Amino acid sequence: MNIVLLESSEIVEQRAVLEDERAKHIAKVLRSSPDDSIRVGVINGLTGYGVIEKINRRPPYSVELHVNLIDSPPSPSNVDVVLALPRPIMFKRVLSQATSLGVKRFHIINASRVEKSFWDAHALDEHIYHRHLLKGLEQAVDTRLPKVCFHKGFKSFIDDSVPHLKEEYKYLIVADPRFATISAEKVVEEPGRILFAVGPEGGWIDYEIERMEQTGFKGIGLGSRILRVDTAVIALHSMLASSSC
Amino acid sequence: MNIVLLESSEIVEQRAVLEDERAKHIAKVLRSSPDDSIRVGVINGLTGYGVIEKINRRPPYSVELHVNLIDSPPSPSNVDVVLALPRPIMFKRVLSQATSLGVKRFHIINASRVEKSFWDAHALDEHIYHRHLLKGLEQAVDTRLPKVCFHKGFKSFIDDSVPHLKEEYKYLIVADPRFATISAEKVVEEPGRILFAVGPEGGWIDYEIERMEQTGFKGIGLGSRILRVDTAVIALHSMLASSSC
Repeated sequence: MNIVLLESSEIVEQRAVLEDERAKHIAKVLRSSPDDSIRVGVINGLTGYGVIEKINRRPPYSVELHVNLIDSPPSPSNVDVVLALPRPIMFKRVLSQATSLGVKRFHIINASRVEKSFWDAHALDEHIYHRHLLKGLEQAVDTRLPKVCFHKGFKSFIDDSVPHLKEEYKYLIVADPRFATISAEKVVEEPGRILFAVGPEGGWIDYEIERMEQTGFKGIGLGSRILRVDTAVIALHSMLASSSC
Repeated sequence: MNIVLLESSEIVEQRAVLEDERAKHIAKVLRSSPDDSIRVGVINGLTGYGVIEKINRRPPYSVELHVNLIDSPPSPSNVDVVLALPRPIMFKRVLSQATSLGVKRFHIINASRVEKSFWDAHALDEHIYHRHLLKGLEQAVDTRLPKVCFHKGFKSFIDDSVPHLKEEYKYLIVADPRFATISAEKVVEEPGRILFAVGPEGGWIDYEIERMEQTGFKGIGLGSRILRVDTAVIALHSMLASSSC
């Protein structure tokens, strides 16, 4: 946790009282004392620092902060992610790591090789995955909460959502080992927002790749290696982000 | 596990008998039957397939394979990694994920902000970290086992090892938020082997950066975001690997 994040409603006249995990973190990990400054931010707002006015370093932990908000959060990434729903532990990992890289929009879609049971996972409850988005923000000293959109039908995602996404993104990219490995610069010729799609553990089926190509996705490969979903998302993000700046 | 890896000594006249976790995996996850073919490889050797001749699908699991080796493993990455020793769980994660990307050499070094206790971790025993290298190979259908070199002194790494590494690598790169974010193509101007260094959780200290720059490391940044060590390693690897091909 490199920044303590607050809801704007928690701050009243520049003061906030924390009594949850954040208070415990400040007491036990940061080992802060009165008058110490710690890095704070408001979710979807500014970052700054909080001066500790009171602290109870034993359970029940509590911290009273005087909050000064002065800086903008870091720029968002211009690369967003479409993800065939992975198994729950992988879903959480991808959310927090991609959030730490500045991804602000996740489209979670169905695919033929997504196990049906994954759609019933607790990880898809907002109050669960929200924690993993926060983890990513807390890691990267960011405040802008990403949005997660679920599309339980592959076909309706392609037919109904992609036409809108094409207006928002300059490049739609689908990654798959069946495509030749090409350097990102060959695909991303000029600056612009990018949306890339990573398939399920077993890969996309031919029909899915065809439909995506028909609607404007360009295929790229990452070589013959089969990568874990989290590895592939980070690798592709950084390849595409660095080629587009 | 996308490939079952064998030691060459396990294959006698094209036959191998497995009685460990691999047999369990073939029986329980792959649910293979006699005459099925599964993907196999020899550590540091060829890949191919194994035809199941006998299988005991209940404990004690055992599988007898007729092995045919026909293909070369995928090309190694031309990017290797220097890593300030992270905490054990992170160390294991980085090894397996970077191995899946084709990294073949890890230099694990000390740094001022590496916790001393990390050097006593079980994860540094070869028979422990070896499993995590194998995991990476098994993920990526690779057979070439990476080498892990430990340098418990930062100074001796710089003075004694870096001069040799400079002959081996065309580019030595150190990543740190204090450097400007520049696109990898600005650093990597022509094809060649790359070695990049990622610091400890608290970052490099000034002295370490100075010494590395003096010995020929070029600094690059990844933006202001603080990334987890595993995220940073994958992100840098893919940025540099894609810029150098």
